[in-house]
Amino acid sequence: MAKASIVSIGNEILSGQTVDTNAAYLSTKLLAIGIPVVSSYTIGDEIDSIVRTLNLAGNDADLILVTGGLGPTDDDLTRQAFAQLLGTDLQLDNKLLDKIQEFFVSRNRQMPEINRIQAYTPAGAKALPNSLGTAPGIWAELHGKSFIAMPGVPFEMKQMFEESVLPKMAGFSFGNVVVVKKINCFGTGESNIAELLTDLCRRDRNPLINSTVDCGVITLHIVAAAEDKNKAQQMAEKDEHLLRSKLGKLVYGTDDQTLAEVVGRMLAQQKKTISVAESCTGGCLAAMLTDVPGASEYFTHGWVTYSNSAKIDELGVPDELIQKHGSVSSQVAEAMARGAGKRAATHFAIAITGIAGPAGGTEQKPVGLVYICVDSDNHCETKRFIFSHNRASIRHRAAQTALNMLRLKLQI
Amino acid sequence: MAKASIVSIGNEILSGQTVDTNAAYLSTKLLAIGIPVVSSYTIGDEIDSIVRTLNLAGNDADLILVTGGLGPTDDDLTRQAFAQLLGTDLQLDNKLLDKIQEFFVSRNRQMPEINRIQAYTPAGAKALPNSLGTAPGIWAELHGKSFIAMPGVPFEMKQMFEESVLPKMAGFSFGNVVVVKKINCFGTGESNIAELLTDLCRRDRNPLINSTVDCGVITLHIVAAAEDKNKAQQMAEKDEHLLRSKLGKLVYGTDDQTLAEVVGRMLAQQKKTISVAESCTGGCLAAMLTDVPGASEYFTHGWVTYSNSAKIDELGVPDELIQKHGSVSSQVAEAMARGAGKRAATHFAIAITGIAGPAGGTEQKPVGLVYICVDSDNHCETKRFIFSHNRASIRHRAAQTALNMLRLKLQI
Repeated sequence: MAKASIVSIGNEILSGQTVDTNAAYLSTKLLAIGIPVVSSYTIGDEIDSIVRTLNLAGNDADLILVTGGLGPTDDDLTRQAFAQLLGTDLQLDNKLLDKIQEFFVSRNRQMPEINRIQAYTPAGAKALPNSLGTAPGIWAELHGKSFIAMPGVPFEMKQMFEESVLPKMAGFSFGNVVVVKKINCFGTGESNIAELLTDLCRRDRNPLINSTVDCGVITLHIVAAAEDKNKAQQMAEKDEHLLRSKLGKLVYGTDDQTLAEVVGRMLAQQKKTISVAESCTGGCLAAMLTDVPGASEYFTHGWVTYSNSAKIDELGVPDELIQKHGSVSSQVAEAMARGAGKRAATHFAIAITGIAGPAGGTEQKPVGLVYICVDSDNHCETKRFIFSHNRASIRHRAAQTALNMLRLKLQI
Repeated sequence: MAKASIVSIGNEILSGQTVDTNAAYLSTKLLAIGIPVVSSYTIGDEIDSIVRTLNLAGNDADLILVTGGLGPTDDDLTRQAFAQLLGTDLQLDNKLLDKIQEFFVSRNRQMPEINRIQAYTPAGAKALPNSLGTAPGIWAELHGKSFIAMPGVPFEMKQMFEESVLPKMAGFSFGNVVVVKKINCFGTGESNIAELLTDLCRRDRNPLINSTVDCGVITLHIVAAAEDKNKAQQMAEKDEHLLRSKLGKLVYGTDDQTLAEVVGRMLAQQKKTISVAESCTGGCLAAMLTDVPGASEYFTHGWVTYSNSAKIDELGVPDELIQKHGSVSSQVAEAMARGAGKRAATHFAIAITGIAGPAGGTEQKPVGLVYICVDSDNHCETKRFIFSHNRASIRHRAAQTALNMLRLKLQI
């Protein structure tokens, strides 16, 4: 099985001014097609250091993916380092020069002389097109290893990797075609999901099932390898059905879908509208819902009723109810949701009230206590939660959980 | 001047399942005290590979910071690798064992036998206390170089670094005591700030001034080195005055303060209250304001008036105004702010209306066009902006810019 190594070049990464997301992106993409990354190096803009590191990476792996150092300035030295590694010189490629000039012309600018260097490629290496910027990539072969240089700017790198590098990777991954499907879950912990899947998570299984967690969202990656694409696709689909049958309603979506996107799509399809009334989440739920392009189709009104008077004046929550049960109570959550739905005349209304902390907790009502109510014409559901960690995570988890409650309601 | 190298250990980082934020954190902290990171390595959980990489890092630098691989399971091999590097054995440290047992007792659990390994330290090395978890760190000296292992869990690592490592770093940075002050700016670009500072940013200057950028916030790190702390403190303070005099109102705060925190503190001190009315930012501004603990002291009401009818019904924006100027206009922004301030009876009201995209733009009103109004009893200020990049960054920048407008108003 082929192995990969990643080399990230740039003083701005070493100094911590830029977090290197390129390496994680490449690792995920490579793992998904069955190529493990066995080492990753970050170095500054110094030619000797770059050449030495390319050699180290070449000792570790068959495929060496390099990002950064392809810009037009003096501290961009990846081209020169590749030439030194190959023992050749840089050669002007007139076709590349034309393309770079076109890039500037299309933006009504003249190419600065400084960008001319980007049209040079080490003799014997191949240039990779960059449709989003001026820095072409480089693909070089040395002693049976492939050294590939891509720009450091993430969106240029991703475009180049997916367009010019990934399609040629199939040969590296056990000689098989690999298909990956992602299944996103919400509503339980990672260990609980592992228990539900038992043997399916074995490391020697094909398809391989990897899980990752991000803010309560658990993503299962199904990695199917087979001699042809149809077969791999079928294997992945079979596993998707299997996972869905084992996990049921814990599965909310696929690929990079967020809960807000999925809920938004369901609302749009069912031609339903939503309004929200937030206390402790202070706008987080509205912000998640409106983060989705086209949200105006179903989202109309949001209230952040942080003070009691806001709850009373804007949502018509009875003062007595707050006096009797406190503003953090199921009764007030329900009254907030009903008030929002009535004022906004939406099909659904969600209300959240709780104690995000760090102050304000009591023994009976600790920090992390949150009531969430999802109200609709025919049904009103209020749930009590205790979320943990800090203020930010309590707020985030409460908003996500509210979206999940609405999802389950829309799925019925 | 001393140099540092970072080694991150863990299959979960190599596989891209975890983005390595530890390296960026350490780089920033070290740079701030004048120690540049010259290389950074990421490797998997294999002992030979770890030992080889420790040697490589030792060739690059004087200070080698290692994170990860200190857990209790079989794939945690940093302790063993350190012993191999030093040519010694692991020794049981009974004091460490007591501490680990206490950790479990305090959580009403018995220590699993597996955690016993965490009480072992390579002979000749020093253990570093972990107040938040069970994995102690390791500090070893070899050939005049310092090798320091810390846990991979970010909050445990940060705590250990700041408590046990950073205080001992002074000796590494030109043999001097180092004092760092951070100055946060908002309202212009990094290159504009560099122009205003000119010679102050010279790399051979003491104090050294480094700048970092995050979502429009530009942070200047003043790194003052001197023979004693008082002197360094004085130098840093002198530079702080100098920077403040050159940058004026661009400076909004120090250290890790956010715009929302600074604005919140000003509101609390001046006993003023605020309400917000948001369209394109959809709750982001309210979420930022309420992200600050204690925000209920000054923040009372927020409206997310996404639909026109919400603007009309909830904020009293005249329908004719929307018909005449469009909902994205200075007139509607002003009416939203006035309506919010009136309903909420707050001293200040902010309104934001714009086009976050990707759809909805026209030639006259392109994606990124945003009107922000800050209204108070005696003055109403509305500004027009064109923000760039994508939906998320347009929304984020609009909300931050609104906070900054309020800050400038509160500073008068």
